This record gives sequence, C-alpha cells and structure tokens, in this order.
Amino acid sequence: MTFKGMPGLTSPDTGLHSIAEDLAQRFHGVFASETVERYVFESYTALARTAKVSAHLPALTAKFTADRLTALAQSKGLYPHDVPEVLFVCVQNAGRSQMAAALLDHHAAGRVHVRSAGSSPTEVIHPRAVDVMVELGIDLSQEFPKPLTDDVVRAADVVVTMGCGDACPIYPGKRYEDWELDDPADASLEEARRIRDEIDARVRQLLSEVLPQG
Amino acid sequence: MTFKGMPGLTSPDTGLHSIAEDLAQRFHGVFASETVERYVFESYTALARTAKVSAHLPALTAKFTADRLTALAQSKGLYPHDVPEVLFVCVQNAGRSQMAAALLDHHAAGRVHVRSAGSSPTEVIHPRAVDVMVELGIDLSQEFPKPLTDDVVRAADVVVTMGCGDACPIYPGKRYEDWELDDPADASLEEARRIRDEIDARVRQLLSEVLPQG
Repeated sequence: MTFKGMPGLTSPDTGLHSIAEDLAQRFHGVFASETVERYVFESYTALARTAKVSAHLPALTAKFTADRLTALAQSKGLYPHDVPEVLFVCVQNAGRSQMAAALLDHHAAGRVHVRSAGSSPTEVIHPRAVDVMVELGIDLSQEFPKPLTDDVVRAADVVVTMGCGDACPIYPGKRYEDWELDDPADASLEEARRIRDEIDARVRQLLSEVLPQG
Repeated sequence: MTFKGMPGLTSPDTGLHSIAEDLAQRFHGVFASETVERYVFESYTALARTAKVSAHLPALTAKFTADRLTALAQSKGLYPHDVPEVLFVCVQNAGRSQMAAALLDHHAAGRVHVRSAGSSPTEVIHPRAVDVMVELGIDLSQEFPKPLTDDVVRAADVVVTMGCGDACPIYPGKRYEDWELDDPADASLEEARRIRDEIDARVRQLLSEVLPQG
C-alpha cells in the first residue's frame, strides 16, 4: 500500500516517527517522549483533515508540533516567557489572523511573540492576503492555516478573535479582544488593501498597549 | 469574567479539571495523568471550534475524551481488542458516517465495535438523518459530530471513508474502503430514506466480511 502524495513512503508513519524522535530529543526533560509522539500524530491528523497538499504535510507537522509543544511548555512555566504572547484567531487562519500575526510580528521586532490559528482552517493562505502583504515587504508564503488548539490559547497573554464566534475557550487571566473586520477572502485588491491597513492600525495600537511602559 | 453559556462557572477550566481527574482515575495505570489532562483540554478545544451549544460541551468532552483514550489504549495493546473495530469517516460526521455507524452497531449486536468521525465536523447531526433512522427505531439524538483524530484511526481494523477525500491517514495493516454515497444533508425525505437503505445494504455486506467465519 502506498500513501497518496508521499512517493517512497508506504505510510506517513515512517516520517512521523522520525519527526517524533527529533522532537523528543529537542524537548528532552520537558515532555515525555509519549507526549511528544501523541502531539506529532494528532497534529498530523488535524492538518491532514483540511490540507490538500499532502506532500508538504510532514514538514508542516514538524513545525506545527514544535510550536504547540513550545506553547505548552510556556504555559506550564517550563520554558521562559520573556515577552507578551499574542494569539490571533479567525475562522480560516488564511487571511485576517495571518495578516494580523505577520504585521504584529513585523512591528514588534522581537518584543512580542505572535501566533495565529483558525476555528475551521482552510487548505492554503488566501492569495489576496499574500499579495497585499507582499506590497509591504512581508512574506506570508511560508505560512499555513492551523487549527486552534488548547496549548496556544493557554500560552497566550492576549487573544484576539476575528469573526470566529465562541470558538475560542475563555480562560481566566488573559486579555480577550474581538475585532470586527471584513474578510479579505473574496475582496477586491482595493478592499484587501483597506482591510490590511485597518488591521495594521489595530495591531499598532495593540502593540503600544501590550508593551511594558517605560 | 464569566464563560458564555456556562452559568456558574468562571471558565471551562473548572469543569475540565474535574473531568480530567475522573478520567485519570479511570485510566490509572494505562496513561499518565498529564496525558489524560492534555486529551481532555485538546478534545474540548477541538469540539468548541465547531459546536454552537456550549452548554453541552463539558459532557460531550468527557464522552469524546474517554472514547479517544480507549482507542489509544486499544491501539497500543493496553486494552483488550476482542472484536473488529470499524471507523466511518465522512466530512461532517453529521449524516452518512453517523447513520453507517449506528446501523453497523445495530446489526453487529456487540460482535463489532464502531466509531465515526468527520474531517470537518458540523455543530449537530442533520435532522433528516435523525428522522430516517428513527423510522428504523434507531436513536441518533444522543450522538454528536466529532473531529477525526489519530487515535481512532490507529485503533481501527477497518476504515470506511465517505466523500472526505484524503483527509484520513493511511496506516499499514488496516482495511480501507471508500463508499460513494449521496449526502443526506439537503436530501428530501424520500432521498434520505434511499441513502439510508443503501448504507444499510453496504453495512450488512461489510459485517458479513469482517466477522470471523464459522
């Protein structure tokens, strides 16, 4: 039996086990190897449910799992939490939340750590969102839509939701904001630019509020 | 801060921790309590992303998590695996896969264990599916759409996909089938009955094939 889209592998298992071994080494002393293995396999299945391009799935799984384990370690106080953590959540994690995350990351220049996720992630980033971000010199082409997970919510100091209703768990001790924004998915280039600029203004405002005064 | 839809709780955390404690006891000696806790929280977030009725979420989370942990224990050989395990996967886990699971469970009468899941689960079971199953005396009203997870795939001996493309990981040593069926979501009552009867015929055939001969 061969796995569609993964020539040379009889099943994704081979690649996933090797990812799990690498990550178990990287998180040695932080998480048991069984926890890491579970995270790898469940992250793979969660991405596979929506992703069309299965050829990239192992690489995306490695990236997504590493980030989830880092978030989990932060939320448990096992990893340093030096800068504010901001999480953007929209429905598809393909437009608004990706743009907001990239813009905040850009302006914060290391003073804030940023993540994004979607309540119902799509296969790829909206091309329109990629286009209008390229105009600012920001490259979204390496990003990918990710499902919202508990670990990244727990690691966040600030959660910004955008049109995803009650999809995000509300935990105490965090700042929650809901931003009403148009969806760039079906927008014209002009509209997408306007949405981008509105997100940019809100992101700059948020940055000024979450950074320590001084 | 109060959690919408969960009066009396300041956050879902309180209820989830108590579910995690119960399940940690139930799976004592099988899984570490940290593994159980992670499963509870991630199951909650995965269900919350799509479910609208957050009042029922803690109860559904407890049920979904217990079943996932059971599947994981089975796949690792920590729990007995006495009868064939069959998993039905469609897109929404709201119609076809729910009907197939209920019909197989009905006909198998304990000789097969059945699960179902969706690549992109919806909020509730389709009323049309509930209606045509009630006609056979089978009650779907206590079921709920669940996202496809790695654990239930691993526990399965047979995986039947229905219109969900490549969403389901292909692991060696399992029997995979893909059934082409119309979607009962927008079907008339007549059409829904026809889909139900077609599923029923296929389910009976499958049952005859997976049961030990003798």
